[in-house]
Amino acid sequence: MRKNLIFSEKEYRQRVRKTKEMMDKGGIEMLLVMDPANMNYLTGYDGWSFYVHQGVIVSLDAPYPFWFGREQDSNGARLTSWLPDDCIYGYPDEYVQSRYTHTMRWLADLLREKRLEKRRFALEMDGYWFNARMYLTLLEELPDAVLMDGTNLVNWIKTLKSPAEITYMKQAAQICEKVMQTAVNEIDVGVWEKDAAAKVSAAQIAGMDAFGGSSPAIFPIMPSAERTSTAHLTFDPDRQYRKNDVVLLELSGARHRYHAPLSRTVFLGEPPQDLQKTADDVITGLQETLTVIKPGITAEEVEERWRKAIAHTGLVKPSRIGYSYGLNYPPDWGEHTISLRPGDKTVLQPGMTLHFMPGIWLETYGFECSEPILVTETGCEKFIEFPQKLFAK
Amino acid sequence: MRKNLIFSEKEYRQRVRKTKEMMDKGGIEMLLVMDPANMNYLTGYDGWSFYVHQGVIVSLDAPYPFWFGREQDSNGARLTSWLPDDCIYGYPDEYVQSRYTHTMRWLADLLREKRLEKRRFALEMDGYWFNARMYLTLLEELPDAVLMDGTNLVNWIKTLKSPAEITYMKQAAQICEKVMQTAVNEIDVGVWEKDAAAKVSAAQIAGMDAFGGSSPAIFPIMPSAERTSTAHLTFDPDRQYRKNDVVLLELSGARHRYHAPLSRTVFLGEPPQDLQKTADDVITGLQETLTVIKPGITAEEVEERWRKAIAHTGLVKPSRIGYSYGLNYPPDWGEHTISLRPGDKTVLQPGMTLHFMPGIWLETYGFECSEPILVTETGCEKFIEFPQKLFAK
Repeated sequence: MRKNLIFSEKEYRQRVRKTKEMMDKGGIEMLLVMDPANMNYLTGYDGWSFYVHQGVIVSLDAPYPFWFGREQDSNGARLTSWLPDDCIYGYPDEYVQSRYTHTMRWLADLLREKRLEKRRFALEMDGYWFNARMYLTLLEELPDAVLMDGTNLVNWIKTLKSPAEITYMKQAAQICEKVMQTAVNEIDVGVWEKDAAAKVSAAQIAGMDAFGGSSPAIFPIMPSAERTSTAHLTFDPDRQYRKNDVVLLELSGARHRYHAPLSRTVFLGEPPQDLQKTADDVITGLQETLTVIKPGITAEEVEERWRKAIAHTGLVKPSRIGYSYGLNYPPDWGEHTISLRPGDKTVLQPGMTLHFMPGIWLETYGFECSEPILVTETGCEKFIEFPQKLFAK
Repeated sequence: MRKNLIFSEKEYRQRVRKTKEMMDKGGIEMLLVMDPANMNYLTGYDGWSFYVHQGVIVSLDAPYPFWFGREQDSNGARLTSWLPDDCIYGYPDEYVQSRYTHTMRWLADLLREKRLEKRRFALEMDGYWFNARMYLTLLEELPDAVLMDGTNLVNWIKTLKSPAEITYMKQAAQICEKVMQTAVNEIDVGVWEKDAAAKVSAAQIAGMDAFGGSSPAIFPIMPSAERTSTAHLTFDPDRQYRKNDVVLLELSGARHRYHAPLSRTVFLGEPPQDLQKTADDVITGLQETLTVIKPGITAEEVEERWRKAIAHTGLVKPSRIGYSYGLNYPPDWGEHTISLRPGDKTVLQPGMTLHFMPGIWLETYGFECSEPILVTETGCEKFIEFPQKLFAK
C-alpha cells in the first residue's frame, strides 16, 4: 500500500523518542494514547474513526508503537501511518459499542499475548477519550500492571512545534485569512446567517489554490445579536442579519488538522459607544500584551501584563486569555497544556504556538479580537495579518 | 432573555419524565448526563462548549434538571435551554483544564450544598464525556454516594422519536438529498477533491431556501481510490480526481443537530466488473432486507435476513450493517444503542430511526450504498429518495 505520510519518518521517530524520554523520566514503562490528535502525532493516523475505541501503545522497549482499532479502520492505519503493517491490530466488530464485552478486554488479551501485562502503564486519565469504564476494565483485567496517570504527556511534547509543523500552521493561517475575509464580506443586513456560514465552511475546506484545507476541530462559531453575550453559540439557521447586530466570528483555517484560529467582530450599523469603547480597550490591551511575549516570560506573567493593560478601562476578564493550540480533532483545537492565566508557570519557549484570545461576553453582547502567535527566538510573531478593529458595515 | 427553544417546553418535560421513569426502574436516584446530545435532549442546550466539562443533573425529587458548565457558557444555557435561570450554574474559569483542581470537586461541592451527596448516583461510565479522572474524583469526594452505571440511559429513551423530532429529521433528509446531489454533480476527473468537499460542506449548512442546516457530527467522509479500501478516511486536500477513481460518499444533512446520513459511491469511468457486481449484490441485499423491517422484528433478525440475502454472492460483511441515529454532536451521529448485528435482541418499534449501512471495504476499493429509515406502524420508510446505484460518470 502506498503510504500517505505528511511528515518524514524521521520526524515521527523523533516524536516517539521524545515521548519515551518523557515516559522514562516519569517512571512509565508503557503509555496508552487514545486522543486522536496524539495518535496522529505519533503515527500519522488520520481518520474519523475516533467515535469507536482505538489507541496507540508506546512501550519503552519496543522500537515501534503499535496501533489498535476497529478492523474496518485498520487499512486506514496502513495507509496513513508510518508504522509497519505488523504493528497494526484490528479488533472484531462485535466489540464496537457492545453491551456484553469491552474493547479493553480485547486490548488486555493483546497485552498478555505480548507479555506487556505487568508494566507501569500510563493512561490519559483526564482526556476525552479514556472513559471511566475503560479504566475499571483495565484495572480488573491487568491486576499485575501499575496503572498510572499519563494525561497530557504527549500534549506537552506537542507544545513545541517543529519547522515542518510550523509550515503547515502557516498554510492554515493563509486559509484562515481567506475564511475571515469571506465572513466579513458576506455578513450584511438581510443575509441569511446560514448562507454566510455555508460560505465560511466552504472556504475552510477549499483552502488556497495551491493546497486544500481540512475541517477544523470546531465548527464555525458565528453568533449574532443577543447570542453574542455568551461563548460558543453559533449562527441561527433560520435568521437573517439585522441592522445593529453584533456578530462574533471565531473561525479557523486548518491544514492536515493543524489549526490557525482567529476571532473578529462585525457590527452592522454605527457601533454604539460602549461596544466601540470595549473594542478599543481590548485591542489596545492585546497590542500591549503582544509586545511582551518572548522566550523566558511565563504564561501567568503574560496574563498579568494584560490585566494591567486593561486595569484603567473598567473591563473585567475573569477567564483565561489564551492557550496553546496546534494539531487537533473535535471537540477542541486547544492542546490542554499552557493557559495564559494566573498560576500557569510555563516558561514560554521558541516554537510554542498560542491563541491569544481575550474574548469579552457581557450581559447583552460580546466582543472578540484574537491573534494566533508563534513564540520566536526574540519575541513573537502573528501567524495572520488581519486588521485589528471592530468591523462596522 | 429571549429563549431560543426548538421544541415545546412540554416535550422537554416529557423527556425528563421518561428519564426519571427509567432511573426509578433502575434504582437510580440521581443521574449525571455529560453527553452533549443528551444534555441537549433534556434541556435544549446547544453550544460548542463540550470541550470543557459540563453536564446536566437529573434528580428524582427535583422538578427541574440543573445545568452546570463554564461560567462564560452559562448565558448560552439561559438562551437555549428551557430551564429556569436558577437551575443554571457556572463554574469559575480556574477549573478549566486545570492541573491543580478538578471540575468534579466543584460539582461535589455543589451537590453537598444541595444535600444531594448521598444519592444512588448514576454516571455515563462508558460514554465519551465521562473520563476516568472524573470518576475517581467523584469517588473520593462523595464517599456516601453509591456510584452506579447510567451509560446510554438517555440514549435508549432517544431511540423512540417524537413527531416533532421526525419533522426535523425529514428536514435534515431534504438537506442530505441536496448534499448528495451536489457531491455526485461536482466529482469529476480533474476536479480537486478539496473543491468538491467544500461545496458539499457548504450545502450541508446552507440547507434549503426555507430553513438552514447545521454542521453534522461527522465531517464529509469522501475518500477516493485506494483510500476507499477502509472506513472513515476523507478527501485528499492536494489531489485531483482521476479516471477510474472510486469515490465513497458518506454524508449527512443535519437540522438542529438531528441527522440524515446517506452513503453512495461514484466511479469515474466504466466500472470494472467486480465493483459493479459488488454494487449490484449490495443493493439487492439492501432492498430485500428493507422489505422485512417492521415493528416486532429484532435487530439481529434484520442482520440475519441481510446475511441470507448476500449468502450466494461471495460478499462477506463482518461488521454491523446499521445502527440507531438521530440528535448528535461530534464524534458520532449514531446513538450507541441498537446495532443491526448478531446478538442484538432489540425489538424494533415505530418511531425508531436506523441508518442501514452495509459498507463494504475490500483490499483495494470499497462500496457504500445506505439508507436512513424510520420504523413505521406497518413497516419502514426511507427518509430519502435517492437512486440506489453505482454512479458511473
